[in-house]
Amino acid sequence: MASEETKITLRESELPQRWYNINPDLPAPLAPPLHPKTGKPLAPGDLAPLFPMALIMQEVSMEPYIEIPDEVMRIYRLWRPTPLYRAHRLEKHLGTPARIYYKNESFSPPGSHKPNTAVAQAYYNKQEGVKRIATETGAGQWGSALAFACCLMGLECTVYMVRASYEQKPYRRMLMESWGAACYPSPSDLTNAGRTIRAKDPDSPGSLGIAISEAVEDAATHDDTKYSLGSVLNHVLLHQTIVGLEAKEQLRLAGEEPDIIVGCVGGGSNFSGLAFPFVKDKLKGKQVDIIACEPEACPTLTRGLYRYDYGDTAQLAPVVKMYTLGHTFVPEPIHAGGLRYHGDAPQLCLLVNKGVIEARAYHQLATFEAALTFARAEGFLPAPETAHCVRAAVDEALKCKQTGQEKCILIAYSGHGFFDLAAYDKYHTGQLEDYEYPQEKIEAALKELPQVTDPTA
Amino acid sequence: MASEETKITLRESELPQRWYNINPDLPAPLAPPLHPKTGKPLAPGDLAPLFPMALIMQEVSMEPYIEIPDEVMRIYRLWRPTPLYRAHRLEKHLGTPARIYYKNESFSPPGSHKPNTAVAQAYYNKQEGVKRIATETGAGQWGSALAFACCLMGLECTVYMVRASYEQKPYRRMLMESWGAACYPSPSDLTNAGRTIRAKDPDSPGSLGIAISEAVEDAATHDDTKYSLGSVLNHVLLHQTIVGLEAKEQLRLAGEEPDIIVGCVGGGSNFSGLAFPFVKDKLKGKQVDIIACEPEACPTLTRGLYRYDYGDTAQLAPVVKMYTLGHTFVPEPIHAGGLRYHGDAPQLCLLVNKGVIEARAYHQLATFEAALTFARAEGFLPAPETAHCVRAAVDEALKCKQTGQEKCILIAYSGHGFFDLAAYDKYHTGQLEDYEYPQEKIEAALKELPQVTDPTA
Repeated sequence: MASEETKITLRESELPQRWYNINPDLPAPLAPPLHPKTGKPLAPGDLAPLFPMALIMQEVSMEPYIEIPDEVMRIYRLWRPTPLYRAHRLEKHLGTPARIYYKNESFSPPGSHKPNTAVAQAYYNKQEGVKRIATETGAGQWGSALAFACCLMGLECTVYMVRASYEQKPYRRMLMESWGAACYPSPSDLTNAGRTIRAKDPDSPGSLGIAISEAVEDAATHDDTKYSLGSVLNHVLLHQTIVGLEAKEQLRLAGEEPDIIVGCVGGGSNFSGLAFPFVKDKLKGKQVDIIACEPEACPTLTRGLYRYDYGDTAQLAPVVKMYTLGHTFVPEPIHAGGLRYHGDAPQLCLLVNKGVIEARAYHQLATFEAALTFARAEGFLPAPETAHCVRAAVDEALKCKQTGQEKCILIAYSGHGFFDLAAYDKYHTGQLEDYEYPQEKIEAALKELPQVTDPTA
Repeated sequence: MASEETKITLRESELPQRWYNINPDLPAPLAPPLHPKTGKPLAPGDLAPLFPMALIMQEVSMEPYIEIPDEVMRIYRLWRPTPLYRAHRLEKHLGTPARIYYKNESFSPPGSHKPNTAVAQAYYNKQEGVKRIATETGAGQWGSALAFACCLMGLECTVYMVRASYEQKPYRRMLMESWGAACYPSPSDLTNAGRTIRAKDPDSPGSLGIAISEAVEDAATHDDTKYSLGSVLNHVLLHQTIVGLEAKEQLRLAGEEPDIIVGCVGGGSNFSGLAFPFVKDKLKGKQVDIIACEPEACPTLTRGLYRYDYGDTAQLAPVVKMYTLGHTFVPEPIHAGGLRYHGDAPQLCLLVNKGVIEARAYHQLATFEAALTFARAEGFLPAPETAHCVRAAVDEALKCKQTGQEKCILIAYSGHGFFDLAAYDKYHTGQLEDYEYPQEKIEAALKELPQVTDPTA
């Protein structure tokens, strides 16, 4: 049945009722997050100024599954379950014997997977009486998802947007404002963190690390306000697992098991959301290649150090063990896509470190080329972030063409490229270049790491 | 069941297999299209330089249903069947006893209902050996839909884009180029029609009428090239009826019958696509209010003349009987949305003239206000065109609140507003104004009408 159809769809009544929590299944103990000032293991109460208690408890939960609240389910139903596509046309175009599937998260109102966690976070904040949520955003995907979620939950939303994106990509800002959010370019003059950086470098293009510092400070200094992070933390990965849980059921309906799973990684939540329910099977012995795709311009997993580092530039966020390029990382303006955080989710980093997940880095010209191949075959234009794993899928499918292997490839199709057409235009007109992240910068980052003891080392 | 769910979905196997043709059901004979030069009724062969014969035959077909070709069905399956949404959250926000449904066409790769006909037209052109299709586009919805369709069918595509939009809305142009189309600002120097207008007015912002003239000339003067129109013609309305046929089945599953159907009208294909399958029932005696929503800035159906007029500015396209503001109509740049064609589909005009369909005009500030009400309740941001019928639906729902009537309202949700955020930004910042179309202009248009005899008058 399913092999004839283009989309494998689930009914709303088949929506997963629970998120999957990878914490109890990890193959080794996770290094504990440390307090940025004391270097001591973080107690749940340390995070209380930033997050509602329900999310803090999810952060450290060892329950294998966590129930999705009804009010979150009602909003999920606006776009979930999302369709799992069989890429018939792409397969034919490539002439591959591989079967390619993509889990299409681009149909949510903001256009990506991000609202899966934004809605949940807004819900738990509202439950605990929070009035406003502050956050950061890079290219604007996360900010617009949180703006959407806060709007539907009846909360205020303040977004610190990396200044380079704020200026170059006004449409995402306008989208946030359409949902009633306030959006400021970061570094801003609204926080100490922002003012300090602007005093040193008035033309700072900003970075995710800087914008995180601003949003954290905003939340920590206002009683009615909490902070929200769009990736990296366990509760975020947890909320995103609805993607993988749906995909697993859809593949089962199609009579398939994936041989290869690919997803792009910025902070790790998109990738983990699709992959973790399959990682669970792999840890029990099932054979599947799970590939995390990142940009060569920000090669955290492939070339970063697996060490404790600050989560943000101003050293306000917890210190966590992860692959890192250093918390002072500022991305090259030449790079067109998102995926520009200096670190990655600790759970994901541990699984990469243990060899359960493989990491690969891609140059941007190759990712845009693959994105256009995809768009001209399947019709849908991927976000530049998504293009990284589309590249990986195309490469794997072409390998199958050479070997004749009929592998089943699953893509985390995380979002559309409607707000990234200026980047596509630069690609069409030869204005994009590849960028090799210099080794010296990685070595310099080593010197900035916090002086803390790793209890798992 | 359905009343609990947010979306009423059909399986791919439940996709309608046939389009509905309203021609045989019209309540009075349609005035025949006339040749622009001779004023004589058009013979099918007269259109052969512009359209493939299969589409010309659909134009005059009296068959009640026309089979959808397999290859068209395969591409439709990339986004069809589209979900019918129950607007639970909007109803609650308005406090109305009305039940509001919206047929969401925004999930197609180009983001609107337009590819329903673009794919079909590309298919029939390809069947008859055409290599390239030329067309016009206003805000870019139609051009990007045809670019998408030609790309997937393996045809070349040339788009003449109204210059004001080309300059103000570069993202749609970039989207067309991502699918491999060539896009030029109109009036251009590529055609006689364009050069003539530029000689008189080098700064002409263009109009749909002018862009049609250019595309028609391009097709008529190149052997391997045909022309394609995104609205107005019967074959276009026909292809769009898949929207209404799906919606009818979805409402049946929900145990509903619509009391009110609303859709926006530019040339009429979006509106007719949803409404015509219900018009069929109304003509047989079923009670339903069917409301065509247009802008006050281009009040074709509400204030235009019901007379024969040219379809384009350069008088190359056929002369048809329709409501018209005159073929030299140029829209006010102050108006932010699409819906700016001087005429409308003859079938739709006939039904308005006979009182089967009601027409209403809306000022733009009121439509943006309704669009934001919708976006903040349902999450999805409507295109400014779609906003016109969202306004009508909100007004009708508020009437129900006053009267206590539990009406069922069906909205033609034709597309998303991701490429119209600059217009939303202008609305947010008070830069949009309402515009009352002056009566003198309508009287002046009367003098420009072609001197032909109306055999149905």
